[in-house]
Amino acid sequence: MSYFDNIQQIKYEGRTSTNPLAFKFYNPDQVILGKTMREHMRFAIAYWHSFSANGSDPFGSGTAVRAWDQYSGLELAKARVDACFELLHILDVDYFAFHDRDIAPEGSTLQETNQYLDEIVGLIKDKMQASGKKLLWNTANMFTNPRFVHGAATTNNADVFAYAAAQVKKALDHAKELGAENYVFWGGREGYETLLNTDLGLELDNLARFLHMAVDYAKEIGYTGQFLIEPKPKEPSKHQYDFDAATTLSFLQKYDLLPYFKLNLEANHATLAGHTFEHELRVARINGVLGSIDANQGDLLLGWDTDEFPTDLYATTLAMYEILLNEGGIGRGGVNFDAKVRRTSFEPIDVVYAHIAGMDSFARGLQVAAKMIEDRVFDNILDTRYASFKSGIGADIVSGKANFKTLEAYALENSHNIVNQSGRLELIKATVNQYLINS
Amino acid sequence: MSYFDNIQQIKYEGRTSTNPLAFKFYNPDQVILGKTMREHMRFAIAYWHSFSANGSDPFGSGTAVRAWDQYSGLELAKARVDACFELLHILDVDYFAFHDRDIAPEGSTLQETNQYLDEIVGLIKDKMQASGKKLLWNTANMFTNPRFVHGAATTNNADVFAYAAAQVKKALDHAKELGAENYVFWGGREGYETLLNTDLGLELDNLARFLHMAVDYAKEIGYTGQFLIEPKPKEPSKHQYDFDAATTLSFLQKYDLLPYFKLNLEANHATLAGHTFEHELRVARINGVLGSIDANQGDLLLGWDTDEFPTDLYATTLAMYEILLNEGGIGRGGVNFDAKVRRTSFEPIDVVYAHIAGMDSFARGLQVAAKMIEDRVFDNILDTRYASFKSGIGADIVSGKANFKTLEAYALENSHNIVNQSGRLELIKATVNQYLINS
Amino acid sequence: MSYFDNIQQIKYEGRTSTNPLAFKFYNPDQVILGKTMREHMRFAIAYWHSFSANGSDPFGSGTAVRAWDQYSGLELAKARVDACFELLHILDVDYFAFHDRDIAPEGSTLQETNQYLDEIVGLIKDKMQASGKKLLWNTANMFTNPRFVHGAATTNNADVFAYAAAQVKKALDHAKELGAENYVFWGGREGYETLLNTDLGLELDNLARFLHMAVDYAKEIGYTGQFLIEPKPKEPSKHQYDFDAATTLSFLQKYDLLPYFKLNLEANHATLAGHTFEHELRVARINGVLGSIDANQGDLLLGWDTDEFPTDLYATTLAMYEILLNEGGIGRGGVNFDAKVRRTSFEPIDVVYAHIAGMDSFARGLQVAAKMIEDRVFDNILDTRYASFKSGIGADIVSGKANFKTLEAYALENSHNIVNQSGRLELIKATVNQYLINS
Amino acid sequence: MSYFDNIQQIKYEGRTSTNPLAFKFYNPDQVILGKTMREHMRFAIAYWHSFSANGSDPFGSGTAVRAWDQYSGLELAKARVDACFELLHILDVDYFAFHDRDIAPEGSTLQETNQYLDEIVGLIKDKMQASGKKLLWNTANMFTNPRFVHGAATTNNADVFAYAAAQVKKALDHAKELGAENYVFWGGREGYETLLNTDLGLELDNLARFLHMAVDYAKEIGYTGQFLIEPKPKEPSKHQYDFDAATTLSFLQKYDLLPYFKLNLEANHATLAGHTFEHELRVARINGVLGSIDANQGDLLLGWDTDEFPTDLYATTLAMYEILLNEGGIGRGGVNFDAKVRRTSFEPIDVVYAHIAGMDSFARGLQVAAKMIEDRVFDNILDTRYASFKSGIGADIVSGKANFKTLEAYALENSHNIVNQSGRLELIKATVNQYLINS
Repeated sequence: MSYFDNIQQIKYEGRTSTNPLAFKFYNPDQVILGKTMREHMRFAIAYWHSFSANGSDPFGSGTAVRAWDQYSGLELAKARVDACFELLHILDVDYFAFHDRDIAPEGSTLQETNQYLDEIVGLIKDKMQASGKKLLWNTANMFTNPRFVHGAATTNNADVFAYAAAQVKKALDHAKELGAENYVFWGGREGYETLLNTDLGLELDNLARFLHMAVDYAKEIGYTGQFLIEPKPKEPSKHQYDFDAATTLSFLQKYDLLPYFKLNLEANHATLAGHTFEHELRVARINGVLGSIDANQGDLLLGWDTDEFPTDLYATTLAMYEILLNEGGIGRGGVNFDAKVRRTSFEPIDVVYAHIAGMDSFARGLQVAAKMIEDRVFDNILDTRYASFKSGIGADIVSGKANFKTLEAYALENSHNIVNQSGRLELIKATVNQYLINS
Repeated sequence: MSYFDNIQQIKYEGRTSTNPLAFKFYNPDQVILGKTMREHMRFAIAYWHSFSANGSDPFGSGTAVRAWDQYSGLELAKARVDACFELLHILDVDYFAFHDRDIAPEGSTLQETNQYLDEIVGLIKDKMQASGKKLLWNTANMFTNPRFVHGAATTNNADVFAYAAAQVKKALDHAKELGAENYVFWGGREGYETLLNTDLGLELDNLARFLHMAVDYAKEIGYTGQFLIEPKPKEPSKHQYDFDAATTLSFLQKYDLLPYFKLNLEANHATLAGHTFEHELRVARINGVLGSIDANQGDLLLGWDTDEFPTDLYATTLAMYEILLNEGGIGRGGVNFDAKVRRTSFEPIDVVYAHIAGMDSFARGLQVAAKMIEDRVFDNILDTRYASFKSGIGADIVSGKANFKTLEAYALENSHNIVNQSGRLELIKATVNQYLINS
Repeated sequence: MSYFDNIQQIKYEGRTSTNPLAFKFYNPDQVILGKTMREHMRFAIAYWHSFSANGSDPFGSGTAVRAWDQYSGLELAKARVDACFELLHILDVDYFAFHDRDIAPEGSTLQETNQYLDEIVGLIKDKMQASGKKLLWNTANMFTNPRFVHGAATTNNADVFAYAAAQVKKALDHAKELGAENYVFWGGREGYETLLNTDLGLELDNLARFLHMAVDYAKEIGYTGQFLIEPKPKEPSKHQYDFDAATTLSFLQKYDLLPYFKLNLEANHATLAGHTFEHELRVARINGVLGSIDANQGDLLLGWDTDEFPTDLYATTLAMYEILLNEGGIGRGGVNFDAKVRRTSFEPIDVVYAHIAGMDSFARGLQVAAKMIEDRVFDNILDTRYASFKSGIGADIVSGKANFKTLEAYALENSHNIVNQSGRLELIKATVNQYLINS
Repeated sequence: MSYFDNIQQIKYEGRTSTNPLAFKFYNPDQVILGKTMREHMRFAIAYWHSFSANGSDPFGSGTAVRAWDQYSGLELAKARVDACFELLHILDVDYFAFHDRDIAPEGSTLQETNQYLDEIVGLIKDKMQASGKKLLWNTANMFTNPRFVHGAATTNNADVFAYAAAQVKKALDHAKELGAENYVFWGGREGYETLLNTDLGLELDNLARFLHMAVDYAKEIGYTGQFLIEPKPKEPSKHQYDFDAATTLSFLQKYDLLPYFKLNLEANHATLAGHTFEHELRVARINGVLGSIDANQGDLLLGWDTDEFPTDLYATTLAMYEILLNEGGIGRGGVNFDAKVRRTSFEPIDVVYAHIAGMDSFARGLQVAAKMIEDRVFDNILDTRYASFKSGIGADIVSGKANFKTLEAYALENSHNIVNQSGRLELIKATVNQYLINS
């Protein structure tokens, strides 16, 4: 049985193809800067958006028309696994990602819940072996169930903390079993509604305790996947503790967790925090913690996480630019479509169209970014702009030889001669546009 | 000669006074929680807003009617010093704060500029001795002059870095000479316009080098005032490096600067970063870096730094609450009115009215916060909410005895019994309103 | 059976009461400016938030603990009616408001749906007669059901338009039957997701056609309640057609609907549109269309409709100020709590606490606004500020006697003498604070 | 003497040219949909940004290096005229636009000011005749001078109203003399700082009076250019009266001004109001008031009017799409670069680069939009989506034959059969990307 209208596997047909069910830019085997597109991207499908969600929003019920909705309980869970592997095949995508509660229903006890989960994990494992598909990451959903109303690792209720620990322990066991490349911590409801009833210090201490326990347990069971934290500034909480890349770095540093974590950065979370996506990627890159990305986009005129499929070529170009310059590229991470079809795009084929749109947008971004790197567009700009730090007083500053006294002496002699150069922003933006069209 | 219409010193007349030139809530000698209001607040006047600015905005020329505008050059600078000490007297405020370029004009060379500055610093020193007024902090303006178009410590031009170093060296000399309680680093144009032409890593490394040099130089000259960094997320740059408290902490940690710096937090900068003011204060407090505050308020429906005088009693109450709970209160810092009269409030008396408004708002905030502390309003809420971490499994978590395995075992036994308590936000807010009215 | 813990009717105990189940400011029989508080406010409870919603959000299931959840279908609907009238009694509130789908479930056909609805409306009618409680307004929910995925009156599907018409026809029949004081049109999904697939002109024309049909039908059946449109700028759609008061006025004017509609203004919708609540009220007031208000508040640091219970006394004061100055006050409208308890305030008693908080906040706002009106605080300011338009050239301008030539002649003679007065914003804000505390 | 480094006239060299001083997309004589690019666009240079501004911002002095800064007073004004016509030649742009105060300094009296203005207008007239360049529009600056601190037509000071009238009278005389295609009203400080001291009703009535006088005076002198109002939501005022297109329409309707005015829409003003640029253009188009555009772009992560040169090809494409579909295209209006080089782009050549960037971006937008129109991309989508309104019940709705009763009868029969179609947003966005690259 097909959950996606028996759509054939999507093939690359080139940029002028008018076939909606073809890639126009994503050519998996095309080699760019020494790697295939497939290797650069490591695309992943997000289980929650494509198989568990139904298009509901705070003002209305689900609209999605899905054949698996004829089932319920474990049968539904199994049908979704089938649908997932069908879509991975259709899109020729190698990876997927899930929260524990996406793939299996909760039982009336934790024991029963774990039993359901084990069963579906077993089924997924079989499918993975049969298909060669891989798990980019898994994680634990610690925000949907009402027990997490006040948070999980940052709850005020020790019983809930314990429950969350049990849940992550299980998830790490599954990560090991399925060979997950990464394990992600997204802070669901780790944040606060109001400071008026919140012990901020204790909650952050507890979050650090929780993460240290996770590090210890992974070591104990020999799970060697990469640990990722996913920043988000707000929603559902008024304030989320992992606000942005810099905030998360500050937390990891304070609690001696920096050696164990990288970041999973999302475009829409970046803009909700008041940053461009490329800013978050750059901050992570220069701090050596760029781990993986959640590929989507927000609407900057709206104030919530819209999780649209990424189609803005400026954003995908600058994202791929940072990834290409990152040591090891995307590494063990990937480009995970944490994106949902609009509520108004409710047919199964829209899920396919949307992924094609996203994959093509990232592929085009890769092409453009790679060409700009080959042509040293930005390297040349930086070499010229920062040349003064390569010799003379600038070199003394960088090497640590200078101090306020030597610099004052220099300034007193040279203060009349200071000449700045234009930053040429407008010319640079025109150049990016040319690369966007011509690459 | 009076620059403020010969207004007599403002006195406390109580909350029902209809005299616009009287304090209704600020009673400097009233003792609250063991200290006078005067000691709690350590109010300061910002030189730039009250004596150097003229009400201009990007769409229009200055509107301020000021008697000192009859002068120019050094004479103008001297008149402003007179005006400052007159206003300090009128308002019975003990502290003031300035940037170097607020108090004296630039000359054609750095030498000449320094000479002007020295002269005015000498004059200020005399006035301070005569009046007993004190300098809360000084700082260097490294953003107005076009030479800083690309930043100061984060410029791409080594000559500009040197100039900035010379400027801060001089400012530290003056800090020592005037006994400044603090020295502030506000990152003016330390940020970027676009990542497309920016070497983010180098710029941040250079910023750290600059601050280390400042620490070293202060040590060398024996200046023992407190060093403060003032976060701001954007404006004038698109992205400012000291985005918020957490980002600044992350930077200080990475570059081993944490022992030497505290934070000077501003209400309007907090909200521009997407945070409440109390959030920034709380983050600083639990990290031991709450140093001083820039008291003002923004308009949350506007996207720029409006620097209005603080009149929102909710904000002043919650700010004073954090300060009262901070170890040592505001310490060596103070409540500095980094606030400007509206362009439409252009008469000298508006400057007096505005400070009265701000001082009364903070005084009322202090009264309300102190009463809530005395009544243990929030302490009782927190004691109840977090009680589960005081014993049993919760105590094990906090003490480090628990791990994922013991917690899982606990959860498997207790997962049916998890009971959360309401956070009672609406009742809490109603309670705050009662304290606001009744205190 | 009690759905609210057998809480006794809430009584006024005065501002220093420490009883959480008492009013501190709302004294229903207190006469202010010639009317009782009860008459000024005409408080209403929103059925959807207090009886139909469960605290779910896009990231989690419902948390609300409600005794009626033991029922389902029509039994649930009936239990909710009981709960509503119990809460009306407890809070001593006279009015309530509902959408058709809040009070009764949908059946498998429109016929069946209407039958359920009729049954519950009958039950409500009986309860109203027995208790003396009244219906402030009803409306039709044309956004929850998936059929409205592309809108209702602005859908691209004529069948859906017809369905919506049938639904409003029924709702108007019920409005007449229950003596609803008003009938509200809130544009649910009347808006667009993207202009790329939207015929904006046709959709707005159809919206006007729909509203004209409603006007015609009300006339036909003799329903004489007031018609209200409720503006909202965004959410759930990216752009909602009734963006704000001015946009709605423009629409009503263009389509000759202005004589038939007033506005139902909501605080949180105002701020989402970039306006203060008082701005929207003022715009409506000076255009004679201030009809009713949805009393709540948003969080200006969050970008979605949080619908919090109103507790900001500045906002309630300025809202009541506009209502007091409106001809006829709130008129046939009321102060309807379109507000929901936080997801973290999940106990039934929180619903009571929250309404007390909101009622007290509006009561306090009324007291403060009334005192400022009695003392002519703002009247005096306006009289002085605009005095120049009362005589001379100003009077000529207002009367229509002046033209560009006479004004130029005047200006050529008087251009050196132009003198403006300070707007005194800081003093005014300090004055408002005094009234807030002292009233 | 050259003010722009003797740069030769910019020529079209095609999309792969690496000459920074060449057009890559703007080919003035290329015919698209029956008109040349030159005719479609009617590009204009904004005098204020390119000749009067100096790169200052609220935190720093001007950075712009301009040869005309050697002059002052009327000599400076004359030098700027030369610079303007040089730049018009270099860019091969046909139009320019100015405020009165951009082109000539104020004198000590209105008489003297007018005399300066007349002199420069005479000079401009000569240059226009010699060069064939044309005036797209002029306007009066009624916001820079402190006399306008409380507004111009909406001031509380009748003397200021008279002064403003005299100023616009003069500007209309000059519009006639120079054959300005349009005359623009941008509301500078027409708005409020706070409602607390504002008589909103009177201020808006006065604004209408002012505009009626302008209409009358233009008629009297026989000036037949098009009158335009330029909406902006905020800045410099907290609230600007011409908030957006819909608000302005509402105002024009209320005061019977609609027959006399069209709109001059700006991209950055649109986004400050929470709208896309294409939304504002569409609203204007379907109401027959799309008059002209101010071409620039904002930064959606910043909250002020950044007035950047337009380089976002999505925005230029969708803008040109609306203009192409507008009856008569841009008509008597044009594409005016109300855009400024970044403060960091301070060299004269940056002004040239920036205009090339903007012109190429609009040219590319035109190409892409025209191709989508030729291929009926969106027409086909709309035809299909709204087909149900072409026959049957849908046609009855549109023609006015249907009413609530006939629609209910229809719905009762057809409620089970309602079928919606997907809106296909993701596919549409992917299609737009293809056109962007391939056109």
